[in-house]
Amino acid sequence: MAIPTKKPDKKRRISESTIHRLSLYYRALTLLEKENYETVSSKELARREKLTPAQVRKDLSFFGSFGTRGLGYPVNELKNKIASILGIDRTWRVALVGVGNIGSALVSYKEFMKQGFQIVKLFDNDQRKIGSNHKGIIVSDINNLEKELKEAGIELVILAVPATVAQYIVDNVVKAGVKAILNFAPVNLRVPDDVYLRNENMSMELEYLSFALVNNLSQKRVNEG
Amino acid sequence: MAIPTKKPDKKRRISESTIHRLSLYYRALTLLEKENYETVSSKELARREKLTPAQVRKDLSFFGSFGTRGLGYPVNELKNKIASILGIDRTWRVALVGVGNIGSALVSYKEFMKQGFQIVKLFDNDQRKIGSNHKGIIVSDINNLEKELKEAGIELVILAVPATVAQYIVDNVVKAGVKAILNFAPVNLRVPDDVYLRNENMSMELEYLSFALVNNLSQKRVNEG
Repeated sequence: MAIPTKKPDKKRRISESTIHRLSLYYRALTLLEKENYETVSSKELARREKLTPAQVRKDLSFFGSFGTRGLGYPVNELKNKIASILGIDRTWRVALVGVGNIGSALVSYKEFMKQGFQIVKLFDNDQRKIGSNHKGIIVSDINNLEKELKEAGIELVILAVPATVAQYIVDNVVKAGVKAILNFAPVNLRVPDDVYLRNENMSMELEYLSFALVNNLSQKRVNEG
Repeated sequence: MAIPTKKPDKKRRISESTIHRLSLYYRALTLLEKENYETVSSKELARREKLTPAQVRKDLSFFGSFGTRGLGYPVNELKNKIASILGIDRTWRVALVGVGNIGSALVSYKEFMKQGFQIVKLFDNDQRKIGSNHKGIIVSDINNLEKELKEAGIELVILAVPATVAQYIVDNVVKAGVKAILNFAPVNLRVPDDVYLRNENMSMELEYLSFALVNNLSQKRVNEG
């Protein structure tokens, strides 16, 4: 069963929430595939991700994917299509800067590797860490950051350094030509317009929960963008 | 300067993106306060969080907060108001289950404490960890989870356990009467309708970045919901 494809309409804005929901669909489809489902309805996808079927249909139509009425979406094909849209149908070379508490945990974080994000370089400024082997990767000296990022062909950088030094390091990451940065430091960083920066703040999810507790948000709404 | 308040209009839906933007405004206002600003314009708040001024005004009007034309929003008052909306104008008693790589990093994660999320209990099933002191907290036996969550008056639980055991543990957390759970395990968990569950998947932010790289998303759009 072929999924008719069309290029995303540039005039329609793809929201952050939509992209996050694509990640959710991808996970649901991966699981459905493992469970040997060949097709899935928008209703079932919605149920699994606590969304409405209308939302699912809207999101998927947005990217030119249409299910067949009565049959639903072909699981494997839709999964591959979403992987391609998200850019996770390939491997990305990732460097992680800062091998502290959070950084060390991220090196072992299996979800990164599972989606094709391969951490191949580690950097730190601690002399006791530099040169040591961390999960099979030798920790590099932060002073060689720009040079080694270039040499290793790094496309994505994860920043797990103290807030006070984050901007300095980001400036060097940008100099090395890296265009995508995931920042764990609790600070707003400046990057040029052609560099994509995302901030991961794990406290924000707890704030969502405290908001829900205080305001008695209905559970149904939790995953809707 | 008083901010006129009104109750949020129940008929208007508060989206996930709006709540996350409130967290961003809170951080920006905290910083502005440190920088001794007394007022801030929607334009400046927008600039700092890479949003549009119209978006900022819309979000804040939603909660009944209005700036004064020409003067802007009173920093301290708006900050306190958002803290109250998000439920972070108080302290929450949090338990963390699973003191592995991610769990250990979260115990030391300063942002939690800064926003009032106080980790006061740790649980693990590893006999070598049970009874040990981890950042001043004695690790409890997972077998006593329900009982100890109740006794300690825990309101929020952070789950950093393997996917295979996550549902079993969540069931026990729910039995203990906890209504809010932040899950780091890469699995969809079932909870009753009156329990709020959020999944933290750090790979999703990397997927957003790979999407951006592949689709050449303009930077301006990155923080817009």
